[in-house]
Amino acid sequence: MLRLLRETFGAYGFVPLETPHIERLEVLTGKGAGSDEVLRQIFDVTNKGGEEGKLALRFDLTVPLARFIAKHVDSLGVPFKRYAIGAVFRGERPAKGRYREFTQCDFDTVGTESAVADAETIQVISASMTVLGVPGFKISVNNRKILDGFLHHLGVAQHSGPILRSLDKLHKIGREKVLGEISLTIGQGAGELADQPIPPSASEAGKILEFVEHGRGGIEVLDRVEQELPDQPLVKEGVANLRAIFELLEAGGVRPENVRVDLGLARGLDYYTGVVFETHVESFENFGSVCSGGRYDNLASLFTKRRLPGVGASIGLDRLIAVMEEGGWLQSRSTTVPILVANFPGTPAAVAMRLAARLRAAGIGAEVFPDPISLGKQLGYASGRGHIHAVIVGPDEQANEVFNLRDLATRLEEKGIPWSELETRVAQALAPKSTDSASGA
Amino acid sequence: MLRLLRETFGAYGFVPLETPHIERLEVLTGKGAGSDEVLRQIFDVTNKGGEEGKLALRFDLTVPLARFIAKHVDSLGVPFKRYAIGAVFRGERPAKGRYREFTQCDFDTVGTESAVADAETIQVISASMTVLGVPGFKISVNNRKILDGFLHHLGVAQHSGPILRSLDKLHKIGREKVLGEISLTIGQGAGELADQPIPPSASEAGKILEFVEHGRGGIEVLDRVEQELPDQPLVKEGVANLRAIFELLEAGGVRPENVRVDLGLARGLDYYTGVVFETHVESFENFGSVCSGGRYDNLASLFTKRRLPGVGASIGLDRLIAVMEEGGWLQSRSTTVPILVANFPGTPAAVAMRLAARLRAAGIGAEVFPDPISLGKQLGYASGRGHIHAVIVGPDEQANEVFNLRDLATRLEEKGIPWSELETRVAQALAPKSTDSASGA
Repeated sequence: MLRLLRETFGAYGFVPLETPHIERLEVLTGKGAGSDEVLRQIFDVTNKGGEEGKLALRFDLTVPLARFIAKHVDSLGVPFKRYAIGAVFRGERPAKGRYREFTQCDFDTVGTESAVADAETIQVISASMTVLGVPGFKISVNNRKILDGFLHHLGVAQHSGPILRSLDKLHKIGREKVLGEISLTIGQGAGELADQPIPPSASEAGKILEFVEHGRGGIEVLDRVEQELPDQPLVKEGVANLRAIFELLEAGGVRPENVRVDLGLARGLDYYTGVVFETHVESFENFGSVCSGGRYDNLASLFTKRRLPGVGASIGLDRLIAVMEEGGWLQSRSTTVPILVANFPGTPAAVAMRLAARLRAAGIGAEVFPDPISLGKQLGYASGRGHIHAVIVGPDEQANEVFNLRDLATRLEEKGIPWSELETRVAQALAPKSTDSASGA
Repeated sequence: MLRLLRETFGAYGFVPLETPHIERLEVLTGKGAGSDEVLRQIFDVTNKGGEEGKLALRFDLTVPLARFIAKHVDSLGVPFKRYAIGAVFRGERPAKGRYREFTQCDFDTVGTESAVADAETIQVISASMTVLGVPGFKISVNNRKILDGFLHHLGVAQHSGPILRSLDKLHKIGREKVLGEISLTIGQGAGELADQPIPPSASEAGKILEFVEHGRGGIEVLDRVEQELPDQPLVKEGVANLRAIFELLEAGGVRPENVRVDLGLARGLDYYTGVVFETHVESFENFGSVCSGGRYDNLASLFTKRRLPGVGASIGLDRLIAVMEEGGWLQSRSTTVPILVANFPGTPAAVAMRLAARLRAAGIGAEVFPDPISLGKQLGYASGRGHIHAVIVGPDEQANEVFNLRDLATRLEEKGIPWSELETRVAQALAPKSTDSASGA
């Protein structure tokens, strides 16, 4: 899985960048670096020397990236595109799908405000899901400016924080409760209204909820918003950005069924400043988003005065693996090579060693069984590990400089193939079989 | 570099296995798990909750492997071959080439005593150095039993610990001092001799030093040892193991100039029980070994009663990178893709997006420049990052559905290539050029 992700990121020009697991505590706890909840979960690190100041384990890959980029931006240059796959640490109690130590997989483009970078981030999410073999997924995309503009239009922009938090709970607590919460929020600005059964602001709350509920779908959602609010400047900006992104996604070959607009998508709006996105796997929406991200105005403001806008996403690997396990999409092979070269009792191991070396030189992965135990046990090991074929040279075969090639699934064995044909015959056996009709065409 | 190493390990059937960075402290400090020096360097880990018992950061990849294997051996089965590339933590003061947090790269075969596994470990070291582009290196190989047997033969086996520690310092403190130390060690068994200028055991010390000094070279070293000590059982065992290994290495295609016997190689003999090896890069011997390892009788004795013999090696990545930097063998390209698709001012970015997607679909990595800034700046970025060609579509080219292909090194530009030929022409341009004489032959 990690190999496929690295290849995907690499194909778009993202370079791997590792930063340390240990950071100075003040880097991690700097203003705005993490929410209070996250800061409570930080692991402190100490050792006997202890003269190095307070140290702690990173809780995400973004803060270390910000520190690194702020320090090295002049030598790195922008745009700077990096990916990082690494462990992060949070002292929350382990539960199903929530670990004390988990793996994050981030990719970010820093130093540009272009919608090309926004679209490319979504394109890479889509390519990653596809290459991993996730059969159905939906990337929800929003620009926070649209909902902000709508709240301005209603005259309730001063309540946007609590309203967005209520909207975020829509799928958890249901429509009625959210409606109640928002009504209260808006009403409270004019006094204490908790006891009133139908607050006077119910119609505004209803409009907000309707806006969000009708705000899911294709590009036609944006047409409707523009018709309703043709002059709201924030809405205009947000819609223009999403239009540009969807046009670029189409050009970039992202399938329309894999992306949608979702005007209700909020996601930590105190952090993100432009486009935001989440990814849900079809039939496993209850696992939550497996890949989320967005645009931030200034990644490294904690560490430098230079303005560094960027856009990025984070794949929740542990959660994604949990989903893929449930879906049965994880490969169960536990070997990396297709060929086992048996260590036949009575044949010198050097023969197996030599044949395996020739296969590897021809680009075919091969493993030599270390001990000359019974052939049956060696083949059992190979079947269990997921090897596809076994190369077998008994004493007779050695004398005649031939080998037997056994298909571990069908148990069929081709016998007496000359050593000189080793690479070509094994490659042939491993090549995807063409069907009769195709080969006859 | 990591990609090449992963591919190499994978080609021999090693599978990646990640274990957590955080372990329970008692796992790390268990008897025999690490030397006192290492234990002093352990980082403790605490968080606000703190109810989970004492936690600490791993100081190597071997102890976590032992814990993991002991727990899961029944489901994993043996032989079990894994590699791990990950951060380990030691609280020593940072200095040149010594870091607080560094990356280890281990591969081990557990559950077999076969010399095939010993030889394969050395074969993988050799393949790793070769694939990384290290031009000259030497893997020194020893079996501790040979020197042990020789000390038995001399009747000084009871002093083997201090003698081996003295021998380990040979290249640091020189011949005379080592001779003095060993003489004292041997003499001390019979009383306090520190004041005597020439201890009575000088001739034994000289024999030991001579044995070691004549103990470096090819397989002929083993012939000589066998002639001298035909009946010593430990020597016989050790020599037989090394003979088997060298025969298998030859069969496996390891070049003779890259391996040698070194009977003086000691390396933490309290830990290893059979073959041991170290790897030095030619002209950079003073950096120390870049890849070391050996056979251990029982990896997981701390954690299980089941006997789990194994053999493994550890590549010191930070040190190896330091050597490769000094040697000028590190690639300086800081991009992973060969093609920049320019974002030409005035041409819609969707055009660049579409062409880049086609290149990637054809297996050619491509990056779209995010902002439509001046072409000169975009090409400057590409040259600096190490892109090889730029695909350029200005408004005229867009109208005619053609592109220009610019070689970023020579600055030559092929103009007006039809979009329909994009993949083939770019692939052609990237293919290694054959020389005139070769293409004319």
